[in-house]
Amino acid sequence: MSSSTFNPDLKDDADVQLNADGSLRHLLTLKGLSKDILIELLDSAEAFLSPEGALPVRSKALNGRTIANLFFEPSTRTRASFDLAGKRLGADVLNLDVNTSSRKKGESILDTIYTLEAMQVDIMVVRDAGAGVPAYIARNAKDFVSVLNAGESDVSHPTQGLLDILTMRQYRQDFENMTVAIVGDIQHSRVARSAAHGLETLGIGELRLVSPPAMAPAADDMPFAKLVDNLDDGLRDADVVMALRIQRERIGNLDGIPGIDEYFANFGISRERMKLAKPTAIVMHPGPMNRGIEIEGIVADSPQSVITKQVTNGVAVRMAVLERVMRTLDAR
Amino acid sequence: MSSSTFNPDLKDDADVQLNADGSLRHLLTLKGLSKDILIELLDSAEAFLSPEGALPVRSKALNGRTIANLFFEPSTRTRASFDLAGKRLGADVLNLDVNTSSRKKGESILDTIYTLEAMQVDIMVVRDAGAGVPAYIARNAKDFVSVLNAGESDVSHPTQGLLDILTMRQYRQDFENMTVAIVGDIQHSRVARSAAHGLETLGIGELRLVSPPAMAPAADDMPFAKLVDNLDDGLRDADVVMALRIQRERIGNLDGIPGIDEYFANFGISRERMKLAKPTAIVMHPGPMNRGIEIEGIVADSPQSVITKQVTNGVAVRMAVLERVMRTLDAR
Amino acid sequence: MSSSTFNPDLKDDADVQLNADGSLRHLLTLKGLSKDILIELLDSAEAFLSPEGALPVRSKALNGRTIANLFFEPSTRTRASFDLAGKRLGADVLNLDVNTSSRKKGESILDTIYTLEAMQVDIMVVRDAGAGVPAYIARNAKDFVSVLNAGESDVSHPTQGLLDILTMRQYRQDFENMTVAIVGDIQHSRVARSAAHGLETLGIGELRLVSPPAMAPAADDMPFAKLVDNLDDGLRDADVVMALRIQRERIGNLDGIPGIDEYFANFGISRERMKLAKPTAIVMHPGPMNRGIEIEGIVADSPQSVITKQVTNGVAVRMAVLERVMRTLDAR
Repeated sequence: MSSSTFNPDLKDDADVQLNADGSLRHLLTLKGLSKDILIELLDSAEAFLSPEGALPVRSKALNGRTIANLFFEPSTRTRASFDLAGKRLGADVLNLDVNTSSRKKGESILDTIYTLEAMQVDIMVVRDAGAGVPAYIARNAKDFVSVLNAGESDVSHPTQGLLDILTMRQYRQDFENMTVAIVGDIQHSRVARSAAHGLETLGIGELRLVSPPAMAPAADDMPFAKLVDNLDDGLRDADVVMALRIQRERIGNLDGIPGIDEYFANFGISRERMKLAKPTAIVMHPGPMNRGIEIEGIVADSPQSVITKQVTNGVAVRMAVLERVMRTLDAR
Repeated sequence: MSSSTFNPDLKDDADVQLNADGSLRHLLTLKGLSKDILIELLDSAEAFLSPEGALPVRSKALNGRTIANLFFEPSTRTRASFDLAGKRLGADVLNLDVNTSSRKKGESILDTIYTLEAMQVDIMVVRDAGAGVPAYIARNAKDFVSVLNAGESDVSHPTQGLLDILTMRQYRQDFENMTVAIVGDIQHSRVARSAAHGLETLGIGELRLVSPPAMAPAADDMPFAKLVDNLDDGLRDADVVMALRIQRERIGNLDGIPGIDEYFANFGISRERMKLAKPTAIVMHPGPMNRGIEIEGIVADSPQSVITKQVTNGVAVRMAVLERVMRTLDAR
Repeated sequence: MSSSTFNPDLKDDADVQLNADGSLRHLLTLKGLSKDILIELLDSAEAFLSPEGALPVRSKALNGRTIANLFFEPSTRTRASFDLAGKRLGADVLNLDVNTSSRKKGESILDTIYTLEAMQVDIMVVRDAGAGVPAYIARNAKDFVSVLNAGESDVSHPTQGLLDILTMRQYRQDFENMTVAIVGDIQHSRVARSAAHGLETLGIGELRLVSPPAMAPAADDMPFAKLVDNLDDGLRDADVVMALRIQRERIGNLDGIPGIDEYFANFGISRERMKLAKPTAIVMHPGPMNRGIEIEGIVADSPQSVITKQVTNGVAVRMAVLERVMRTLDAR
């Protein structure tokens, strides 16, 4: 039981997540993840999809294995998605309810991890409000354990990024000629960051990050993307339009952050606004949606919407990632 | 993703729950459910029973299938019963903790349903405090999804009704010569309503709804039943006596609602009072019991009590319903 | 459904937990449990261990069986341990969240038990803050049901005691020549009591219970042990040093109970202090740890620490107990 200091800069997350031979050991971030690994995961996820209404694809790849869902931040859909992904691969899934307050009065996060390792948990799926926590855990994990980031502060949400990119590829395929507009509170969005990092690696034609100035990222955060503060400019001729969930508690309460009505008027994805995008454009949202705030209900329910397809892809992507890191562990 | 207006009167629940060929697709209410379907479910449930102390009956009918328990109202026993019923049929069971407050600030109920459909959930077991919610979900569900009502406001609790009726049949068989007395807050009881609707269809000899006047149902609510405001009259020569759980928060706090002692004195099922019923009468209670309020402890523990038998029947009935709707889905 | 009075003295727990033929039917306490049964459980647990990093041992001993985790006190690690133990034996595991407040307004504890029996639960794993509750349940359980104590007030935590003893045996084997020092709030520790009772039966060489006077047990509580109020005396030449978790809410708030800094200075297991024990001594802790209060972090992470080994042994011990009582039930 040795512990390194909790210092996210100690080593790049991108390096921590790979074994010496370059195989995927943990999944912490899409930043710096190679095109080969991205494509391998996307292709593998495709194989875990079945037609709508058909039985879900199952496998025995994780038979006898144990997955712990360690969510320090509440989540219904991401946890359910990992839960089903694990079960459909034959794993035992342990759902641990650990909120931040219980962690405060209880043991340190590393002691929790050592405990789960000692219970012979193979894969830990971690969601945490603290930046650097998943990598910190990964750095301290035994060599027979894998750590998957299921949402980390504003920083990273790699399985969400993968499912978003898989959905774009299904409807467009060619990233080089694709224009993607992500709209909302970019500054605080791990969803936007993970999609952006994956799309950069895959050579996205144009990535527009569209937000009010107060919600824009720092200029050097995602330098390959184009920062846009006007929705019309952001949507024009876009192939993909992704609306981000607005945290209601931020709306109208902060300097420069508009109220709900103003937000919808200026940055809501409405049917009217969608006419600026390509007629064949798809509309995405990571969920859960605030209809009438960041997206008009009629758009979410329109044929352009691929929002439920994203959810289906989410289970498949998580199966692909679980199966991939398990193979890495098995190859020890 | 299309949505109809949330209007419970749009179409009768009794119609929504059947496919065009009359097969059971959802289970929303026992009101209007045909005698044939009722008998089929009761007979099927019998086959899922094993002798006390023996291994529970298992089947592979739902192997590879996914059930989501979506409880917007807290419940321990009904959820546990559905959980075990699903597992004993081989299904993966997803337990979702969704309280009403989180629903308020989160996504709409239909978006939750669309998300579960997209995760390839086959059967959604829904408990909700809002009248009309299960039917609303059923009307908007994809054709490869089934919705089961696990408790809906004061309106309906069909699997509870089935397990109550199964229990009565096991001890009496002949509904036409049976006198059933349901005692308690009939006005607010989904348990009483579901039992009543099923018993009406099966041609119950006499159904007495016994309560203080302030807890009586409207005259046109269950017109086939006899409203009785005196416990002695209600119990006289009854074959079946079912005490309903009293919501303690209602006791003594509302106009015309007696206090606890007064309630027990006038409407509690005591050993003394049970002498009015047939000597062979059975005593039922949906649980959890308030001993000393609606039922005397000694009665609950007496040989006349079939309260634990109801619980056993509950798992069997839920297995029967799950297996039945799954066959309907498979026949698409 | 019959119920005896809730009187822990009605019959000794040690007798309640055995069948007439002496086989283990429930596990309530290590007090009075025979050496033969202790050794059988320890040996069986060894067989459920696999090398670190290898697949966990699985068995089909509980295929088709149902375990209910009924935790009236919150617990993450003990519940997770029982959960995994049950799943790795092939059982269906029902996790019930029942806090004391919901029990207060809800049904009686026996009615909860009758309900689970009626759902064909085979083994109930009970944690409760009330002394006597597990035995009370066991006395009232049907003859096809087994009750396992997963933590009972200050009184008993038998699977913890077994895992502690198993760990000591792995590193020392010979109990007669072993000196064990348990350090902390002995008076309120079910962990200390269970370890002590098992060690007494196994003929421990010397057992020292080390605490500030205000945390010492009554003289007649564990008369075979030596009460020590000075840490140096307690640690000298010890083979095994076990630090107990300190309840932070007790620290500094009670007469005679020292504050945190004072506690660590006088009773914290520090690297400096460990020099008094044998050089080969092992350090144990039941978890979760308060590093810097009852144990210095550097000690917990040192090669002497067997704390994670305890966790691994915990799953194995619980598998052994589950498998053992199931065999007793099967032999009915």
